Amino acid sequence: MKILAIEASGPVAGCAVLEDGLLIADYNIQYKKKHAQSLVPMMDEIKRMLDLDLGTVDAIAIAKGPGSFTGLRIGAATAKGAALAMDRPIIPVPTVDSIAYNLYAADSLICPLMDARRQQVYTGIYEWIRSGEGPEGLRFSTVRPQCVIPVSEIAEDLNARGRSVVFLGDGVPVSREALYGLIKVPYSFAPAHVDRQRAAAVAALAWAYYREKGDACMISADDFRPEYLRLAQAEQEHSERRSFSLLLDK
Amino acid sequence: MKILAIEASGPVAGCAVLEDGLLIADYNIQYKKKHAQSLVPMMDEIKRMLDLDLGTVDAIAIAKGPGSFTGLRIGAATAKGAALAMDRPIIPVPTVDSIAYNLYAADSLICPLMDARRQQVYTGIYEWIRSGEGPEGLRFSTVRPQCVIPVSEIAEDLNARGRSVVFLGDGVPVSREALYGLIKVPYSFAPAHVDRQRAAAVAALAWAYYREKGDACMISADDFRPEYLRLAQAEQEHSERRSFSLLLDK
Repeated sequence: MKILAIEASGPVAGCAVLEDGLLIADYNIQYKKKHAQSLVPMMDEIKRMLDLDLGTVDAIAIAKGPGSFTGLRIGAATAKGAALAMDRPIIPVPTVDSIAYNLYAADSLICPLMDARRQQVYTGIYEWIRSGEGPEGLRFSTVRPQCVIPVSEIAEDLNARGRSVVFLGDGVPVSREALYGLIKVPYSFAPAHVDRQRAAAVAALAWAYYREKGDACMISADDFRPEYLRLAQAEQEHSERRSFSLLLDK
Repeated sequence: MKILAIEASGPVAGCAVLEDGLLIADYNIQYKKKHAQSLVPMMDEIKRMLDLDLGTVDAIAIAKGPGSFTGLRIGAATAKGAALAMDRPIIPVPTVDSIAYNLYAADSLICPLMDARRQQVYTGIYEWIRSGEGPEGLRFSTVRPQCVIPVSEIAEDLNARGRSVVFLGDGVPVSREALYGLIKVPYSFAPAHVDRQRAAAVAALAWAYYREKGDACMISADDFRPEYLRLAQAEQEHSERRSFSLLLDK
């Protein structure tokens, strides 16, 4: 099973190749270049470096959202284009889950924060649970699924749980000051090498889905849609204008 | 502070750039290509992708060993060459420490295993300690420094400590069967995205050293030597032959 993973949901552009549980390539850039400029050249670079025959790829994993609208669309377009051309399925991976997945075996609750603008964050709560003995005894578990809410609301939720927590993601620099005042449980911020989106984490989580669910974790390129979790600003303004004019019509 | 990190100690060839605590590039390949073929082209790729002026790099971090003799020499030669040309210092990072550093905030002891052949592993034991409140309250700590020993010896040490443990590294596939019989504490194996050498982990650990020790974590390109932890096979055979002939001379 060879998985090609694509990450373009936030500030990171990345691609990775995982084959039968072995990460053979992982390339991530967090830089001012636009994903539209960097993503395909990065895939091409990995293809050359690995002498990768794309015909041998079994599925394309992608961070399906939430995230930057433009980023998600570029990621989706790239994944759908490649999947159609190669006649392969897509494995969609929730962005916030894949960020949390960076912290294997963490002792604390894991709370990714992605800057969603307008005083909100894309976030969720995750943990690792030891479920039985043996080397497979550690399970990644969703405590609160990904959502878009104010920082104060996720802080309140975490305080109520009374456990230590690790924050990570590009929402941390934006929310850091607010968190100092809001968080009443022990907490820390993940260091740079594990605190952002990463294509390898998308690949590894897709691989975990596949081992658990088989083909049920896949959908066709045609059926894949990014998960925005809320309307784009333009759509929202359009919708607000529409409600307003409907109101005036009454 | 901009750090260029190089990883060539084992099966992974990697380079990363970390600037003031932000990972801006990370590129790792674990593939049959030789490091001598891949490492410099990968650095060149990142340089192009970031429009990176090498004159703005402040230090070069490198996984100093232990590891593959050839890999360590290629890594050292590349790092020393670049550091000399750029007139910048080197930050040496113990390989086993940097592998363990992949598992931020792990609840268990962390035990990297690198295949050292001849029934031995390069290994060590690490943990994260919560030392006080606040976001900086989690500290990476060495329980047993990196060393080269038989798998049975590290297993005995871990059993005596009575805590759960996470194994990772390219020594895991080789030692997996042996571990089933040897380990008496709860244990697990890290998933693919965090279970090997990674340039970003070398960069992030170098950055942690720099924040703690300042310039004291650096040495000149001229003074840098890889840390093999044992003699190369050829040297060992030479040394054994020498002891044997000295014995015959008596």
